[in-house]
Amino acid sequence: RIMRPDDANIAGNVHGGTILKMIEEAGAIISTRHCNFQAEEPCVAALARVERTDFLSPMCIGEVANVSAEITYTSRHSVEVQVNVMSENILTGAKKVTNKATLWYVPLSLKNVNKVLEVPPIQYARKEQEDEGKKRYEEQKLDRLETKQRNGDMILPVINPEPHTVGYSQSSLIHLVGPSDCTLLGFVHGGVTMKLMDEVAGIVAARHCKTNIVTASVDAINFHEKIKKGCVITVSGRMTFTSNKSMEIEVFVDADPFVDASRERYRAVSAFFTYVSLSKEGKPLPVPQLLTETEDEKRRFEEGKGRYLQTKARRQAQMQQAAQQ
Amino acid sequence: RIMRPDDANIAGNVHGGTILKMIEEAGAIISTRHCNFQAEEPCVAALARVERTDFLSPMCIGEVANVSAEITYTSRHSVEVQVNVMSENILTGAKKVTNKATLWYVPLSLKNVNKVLEVPPIQYARKEQEDEGKKRYEEQKLDRLETKQRNGDMILPVINPEPHTVGYSQSSLIHLVGPSDCTLLGFVHGGVTMKLMDEVAGIVAARHCKTNIVTASVDAINFHEKIKKGCVITVSGRMTFTSNKSMEIEVFVDADPFVDASRERYRAVSAFFTYVSLSKEGKPLPVPQLLTETEDEKRRFEEGKGRYLQTKARRQAQMQQAAQQ
Amino acid sequence: RIMRPDDANIAGNVHGGTILKMIEEAGAIISTRHCNFQAEEPCVAALARVERTDFLSPMCIGEVANVSAEITYTSRHSVEVQVNVMSENILTGAKKVTNKATLWYVPLSLKNVNKVLEVPPIQYARKEQEDEGKKRYEEQKLDRLETKQRNGDMILPVINPEPHTVGYSQSSLIHLVGPSDCTLLGFVHGGVTMKLMDEVAGIVAARHCKTNIVTASVDAINFHEKIKKGCVITVSGRMTFTSNKSMEIEVFVDADPFVDASRERYRAVSAFFTYVSLSKEGKPLPVPQLLTETEDEKRRFEEGKGRYLQTKARRQAQMQQAAQQ
Repeated sequence: RIMRPDDANIAGNVHGGTILKMIEEAGAIISTRHCNFQAEEPCVAALARVERTDFLSPMCIGEVANVSAEITYTSRHSVEVQVNVMSENILTGAKKVTNKATLWYVPLSLKNVNKVLEVPPIQYARKEQEDEGKKRYEEQKLDRLETKQRNGDMILPVINPEPHTVGYSQSSLIHLVGPSDCTLLGFVHGGVTMKLMDEVAGIVAARHCKTNIVTASVDAINFHEKIKKGCVITVSGRMTFTSNKSMEIEVFVDADPFVDASRERYRAVSAFFTYVSLSKEGKPLPVPQLLTETEDEKRRFEEGKGRYLQTKARRQAQMQQAAQQ
Repeated sequence: RIMRPDDANIAGNVHGGTILKMIEEAGAIISTRHCNFQAEEPCVAALARVERTDFLSPMCIGEVANVSAEITYTSRHSVEVQVNVMSENILTGAKKVTNKATLWYVPLSLKNVNKVLEVPPIQYARKEQEDEGKKRYEEQKLDRLETKQRNGDMILPVINPEPHTVGYSQSSLIHLVGPSDCTLLGFVHGGVTMKLMDEVAGIVAARHCKTNIVTASVDAINFHEKIKKGCVITVSGRMTFTSNKSMEIEVFVDADPFVDASRERYRAVSAFFTYVSLSKEGKPLPVPQLLTETEDEKRRFEEGKGRYLQTKARRQAQMQQAAQQ
Repeated sequence: RIMRPDDANIAGNVHGGTILKMIEEAGAIISTRHCNFQAEEPCVAALARVERTDFLSPMCIGEVANVSAEITYTSRHSVEVQVNVMSENILTGAKKVTNKATLWYVPLSLKNVNKVLEVPPIQYARKEQEDEGKKRYEEQKLDRLETKQRNGDMILPVINPEPHTVGYSQSSLIHLVGPSDCTLLGFVHGGVTMKLMDEVAGIVAARHCKTNIVTASVDAINFHEKIKKGCVITVSGRMTFTSNKSMEIEVFVDADPFVDASRERYRAVSAFFTYVSLSKEGKPLPVPQLLTETEDEKRRFEEGKGRYLQTKARRQAQMQQAAQQ
């Protein structure tokens, strides 16, 4: 579809969240279709996890987004989907790869939302494809368990913060979940949640560096808990790390089923977003360093630095590999 | 994309206007892409005309709309696009043809919006395809001239109208044109206009028969005048004819460039929509007869009857033809 | 236009904010049109104030909102517009008055946004109409000055609040101002701001009483400062007063023009919203009393009580007057 002014920031760059939402919708369609094929019981595929996603080049207003999706692995109860997004300038015909994303879905019964159904297996062209898929499956399973454990953190408000401190740029928004946000099962689409997360992360980044910012990447996101229609969700973000030219922002999503007295507010999702600051010509700008004050902030800064160096090393390894081929 | 609650009426049937909007967006993308291929000057394809469109089967919330578009003819300054819409129930895998639409686009220069550019010719598999396309081109050109002449009519308000009269159900809405309604040239997308027209026509139909109504077909729509960002558009509809099981509604779109004192309010588009009334089980219901009072209303009723009989005859001829093959 | 699922809460009642947004759009159109008629310089009418608005009966999904607007007074630099909203159930034909609102607009030059233009005077049928309008004009002018002075207040966060305290239900959201939120001048539509304010106030009310809540009335709102495209706005709400069956919520809008280093965050708007809690059958429910803790909270509770009693007295006087006629 054509990118509209509402999909983009003032500089005309399409929000990362808009792209994540399109990716998730494509993934939900292909995996729901697959799981219902010759199935005994109708089901809806729910997003369980999105692997780390890099935004390779910015998309602009007026460009057409081409989204294609393919199922690349199935375990007994989950589906791995690969989604590619290309931006096309229909005036010049130029096409660029914007994203490649990997998503995991789980089929939930339409009749009983707590019942996970079996996934029909796909055929692999080569045996190695199945083995590689299985390896990816095991890895993500491990990672999901880990993030589930560190999910207890909270963002506390700060009064009169100094510029460039964590408290200065931290932000949160609340959103009342409406019918258009939800699947047939009455739960929020993963893509809607990711769009709100990117919105908050973008505001944190803009408040910190006061320039035009764009999403550079999103770390793996795990969806542990479903969010029901009628909940109020609070999406909060705080900066955890800055390198010379990038900012890492941690985002939490908490759901409050306030019309259901039997349930407490709970942490539904958390993730790390990385942003870069761009000049008017679209060149990366230096980012003011984050000032850490408390012990926790210093610890999170070091952890963020670890993730940053790991990503950098992995990218260099990939480039060397590509150069040798 | 997946159909959401806001795309549909209370009974869960997707609005005809939502489908028309998707069709037009697909047509605008394919024809803009075609006209810019190896072109000297960048351009945007603007909708000039939509041929008569039948809604063959209703689409529902939760279904996926698959839209495909193909260029079927090019004249020197216009492109004919054929768009097909299939609805897919991803739970059952069932697919149904929802629409087949034919649209005409004209490439306008990005630098000078009043300049119509030349269209690169397409290759035809067979010579007959080109001849048939040319015939369709000549026919629509003639029809466009005709509608341009009868565009002067107005809808006047009626005080305390009786049920089932024209005045009783006639309706209008105003809309301030915002940035997301517009193309790169700053003019309203034809699809946005058609969606508003369908909304008003649907209100007229529902007021008349007070049941669940769905769009059955839309007569050819000609877009004579572009509508600019910042205009206020008034969309008005009145019932012109009822058969036993259908209602015909005439819809006018007037644009008021109210911050530009040099321009008067003008008629931008007009069209005829046909609606049917459905029972809870989705079966067509009888429609209360329209009570005509003035001479003009009686004349329009007769003209509507003419269009109705013509369509009926054409459809019977097609069915006989199909049966013979 | 027809009310859609996204316009309403889970119980199907259309949000007060959606109605306020429609009212403001109608007012902006009629006053912009009036001020441009035979004008030398094109202008856009900007919302300066909305008088106290009562929501007389709830509107539901599927109903049609009929909005009509009329200019009732003009001063040299401002326009008073009266807007009426009727809800119409198009299936039964039943119509109900939902709102009557009075709005004040000021024409700003399209070329120089800081220049207020002159308003062409309207003709009055009777001299008394002009005198009454002038009286209303003087009254609102006085009231605007007053609210400008008390606008310094802030909502501070509370950690681990007890149920039914002020801190327990207070809420805030942030919103990045996008192109669709803005007028041709690049400033936020007053209606967009009011919709966000109602959203926050509704969440505060729902958090307090954990039932289905609807907007009952909105006190006069003054728009002292324009909000520019690209700003981040923070909308915060806290409960100030509860009677047996109603809750009063104070809402603040702060704008942060963070990409413009020369400007500080500033208070743009503030207002009081009154909500009632409804049972599943639509009957008013008792509201848990607000627990006030600090001196400021107790003072605001007393002030809220004052406003409540004043409104009650005025309404009783009106009813007696109506009964005598």
